[in-house]
Amino acid sequence: MTLVNQHYLKLQGSYLFSTIAKKVAAYKAAHPQENVISLGIGDVSAPLPAAVIEALHKAAEEMGHAETFRGYGPEQGYAFLRQAIVRGDYASRGIELSEDEVFVSDGAKSDVANFQELFSSKAVVALQNPVYPVYLDTNVMAGRSGSFANGKFDGIIYLPCTEENHFSPQLPAEHADLIYLCSPNNPTGTALTKTELKKWVEYAREHNSIILYDSAYEAYITQADVPHSIYEVEGAKEVAVEFRSFSKTAGFTGTRCAYTVVPKEVQVQTTDGTKVNLRDLWLRRQTTKFNGVPYIVQRAAEAVYSPQGQEQIRRTIASYQENAKVILAALRQAGLTVYGGENAPYIWLKTPKNVDSWTFFDKLLVEAHVVGTPGVGFGTCGEGFFRLTAFNTPALTRQAAQRVAALRF
Amino acid sequence: MTLVNQHYLKLQGSYLFSTIAKKVAAYKAAHPQENVISLGIGDVSAPLPAAVIEALHKAAEEMGHAETFRGYGPEQGYAFLRQAIVRGDYASRGIELSEDEVFVSDGAKSDVANFQELFSSKAVVALQNPVYPVYLDTNVMAGRSGSFANGKFDGIIYLPCTEENHFSPQLPAEHADLIYLCSPNNPTGTALTKTELKKWVEYAREHNSIILYDSAYEAYITQADVPHSIYEVEGAKEVAVEFRSFSKTAGFTGTRCAYTVVPKEVQVQTTDGTKVNLRDLWLRRQTTKFNGVPYIVQRAAEAVYSPQGQEQIRRTIASYQENAKVILAALRQAGLTVYGGENAPYIWLKTPKNVDSWTFFDKLLVEAHVVGTPGVGFGTCGEGFFRLTAFNTPALTRQAAQRVAALRF
Repeated sequence: MTLVNQHYLKLQGSYLFSTIAKKVAAYKAAHPQENVISLGIGDVSAPLPAAVIEALHKAAEEMGHAETFRGYGPEQGYAFLRQAIVRGDYASRGIELSEDEVFVSDGAKSDVANFQELFSSKAVVALQNPVYPVYLDTNVMAGRSGSFANGKFDGIIYLPCTEENHFSPQLPAEHADLIYLCSPNNPTGTALTKTELKKWVEYAREHNSIILYDSAYEAYITQADVPHSIYEVEGAKEVAVEFRSFSKTAGFTGTRCAYTVVPKEVQVQTTDGTKVNLRDLWLRRQTTKFNGVPYIVQRAAEAVYSPQGQEQIRRTIASYQENAKVILAALRQAGLTVYGGENAPYIWLKTPKNVDSWTFFDKLLVEAHVVGTPGVGFGTCGEGFFRLTAFNTPALTRQAAQRVAALRF
Repeated sequence: MTLVNQHYLKLQGSYLFSTIAKKVAAYKAAHPQENVISLGIGDVSAPLPAAVIEALHKAAEEMGHAETFRGYGPEQGYAFLRQAIVRGDYASRGIELSEDEVFVSDGAKSDVANFQELFSSKAVVALQNPVYPVYLDTNVMAGRSGSFANGKFDGIIYLPCTEENHFSPQLPAEHADLIYLCSPNNPTGTALTKTELKKWVEYAREHNSIILYDSAYEAYITQADVPHSIYEVEGAKEVAVEFRSFSKTAGFTGTRCAYTVVPKEVQVQTTDGTKVNLRDLWLRRQTTKFNGVPYIVQRAAEAVYSPQGQEQIRRTIASYQENAKVILAALRQAGLTVYGGENAPYIWLKTPKNVDSWTFFDKLLVEAHVVGTPGVGFGTCGEGFFRLTAFNTPALTRQAAQRVAALRF
């Protein structure tokens, strides 16, 4: 019988969100009169901006006529969108990129998941703890870890993000080839300052490592000293790949568009020391295994960069940022210790009296009818913490916050 | 410096379509007055059906209102589309499938490219020669081949498809773990009959192999004894995965939607003999590395199954089938030996007087101003053959056919 990729079998069941769903369903069945509000999953609630809807209709119309119909497009995305990205997200911040360093895709999840394919299966991976599970799981699937024990995979360098280090990880003592950094961070809601990020770029330059930088939440940054792009740090173009998404910026979670930047300067090497351009490898990967994003979706993403689109997304982001403030205030009123929420749509709260994440989940569900995400679901260092998101509607967020504020711990 | 996945470096440059593009551009520059017609690339020309456009507009409208907005959907596709697929493509042919055996994706290319991840890097791969390069390249990238020599990769079982075997490959003498079959075939345009396919299912059952069956062109089948799905063959559900696409069926090349069927019966095993369900592995792969197809695109694909959608796609497919007939007739009139075109949108012609594929390409471009694809671009057994596609408009196809018919070889 055909042999399986046994690395898949090292994966732990991804029970986090299904366990939450089961607990919530059981509670609702037993208490049908309660209005349960979710601040749990990281999905947006506001509809797509009007400029985006208009672009969708226009592009759909084009697809219905032979003269304007579009078949296969370039796998790496249409030039109109890559140019809009370079202008709108990089040139506007003084970062020079060429459009062939930008690869449009169906999601940052796909890109961060697939990118590791370009590296040797022996590459040493470092990642934050707690962490977005995709970075970890995809490297386990590719054989870059040993087996799982005590909440961790052998062979992976975990970078603890704790209250003590203000959720800004220390540099690893050992050598890491691939370093996953997410800033603003999911799940802690904290962000790396330029000074902190510089430290990582320097480490990567010294160690010839590559930083895989997920900045899917950059639109939520409010502090001036938090960079929106890793390329704001000098020297990053030689060592960093950046992942961005329209999901949390423009409500594209169900519309699917993102992009990855791979500067031409980033290199990897063969065992005999020959240098290879990482951008060329990603181009080869994408042209061989991917066929591009729907034309209509690329037109929709382009509309995000129009003056109307920018104005509309700013308003929605501001409303989620206001939600975050409302949640932070309520949690503080309830006497809780809270982190994040200032540069990110996530609030990371410390559970009171050292109760574990799941006990706190149950208390919040039963006493406030509010659903959040137990921090331990993101890694061992998440135990004793709890994530709330700012993506619900303002009305429901306020209602949930009031209920939490009234709790006694 | 971080080590590259060196298997990528074994890949041969994919120069086929770029070489064609360069030759055509040079010819056009030198002969600006000539109207060059392409029967080369496998992209469609007819616009999306009206029912699909209507569904796109309706879904775009939904995305603009909070009450009907959709964020993250299920990674494997919405139930409405998976149900439509099960009913429209399988139950209608007497094949029983459950909707959780169907995985909606952004393209058959992505799926056939990614599916190999589930298997051991030591799995032995067999594929047709000539072949759609994605099957081969993705296995090379994953380390399932040795190096390239004399037009072939070591360690890969090539199944010659030649005039002698009527382009229906012989069973391999040695053991194969993974067998890629494409029927109706790209590039030869021929199709396996039920009797021929049975032979492969029996081989796979005896050898505990898995057949990766690409039936992206099933809508073009006209012969009654050619199965549309491999599951029409008894026992196939235990050994076969089927890839389907809306690209050539409903004009979705630029709209991106496809699906893969993984029956619950298909199993693989670990080195100690433990059996693992292949469907569960693909579910894990897709939920970890993919975030689903845009909601609006899934609604568009659903509309293909409406009575209006079915009627509209049938008309377009019939028009491409008519193009194939026109091309076949013209080639025969010119005294050429031709294959395919009866159950597929591809015509596979034998070059006259044993000229090589590229010489024929040049002759066709210079003398008839018609662009096709040299067969050798698909593998060594494609040398001396040439592919023409039926996807251009009826008017341009007729014009191209007349020019070819007038040629003297």
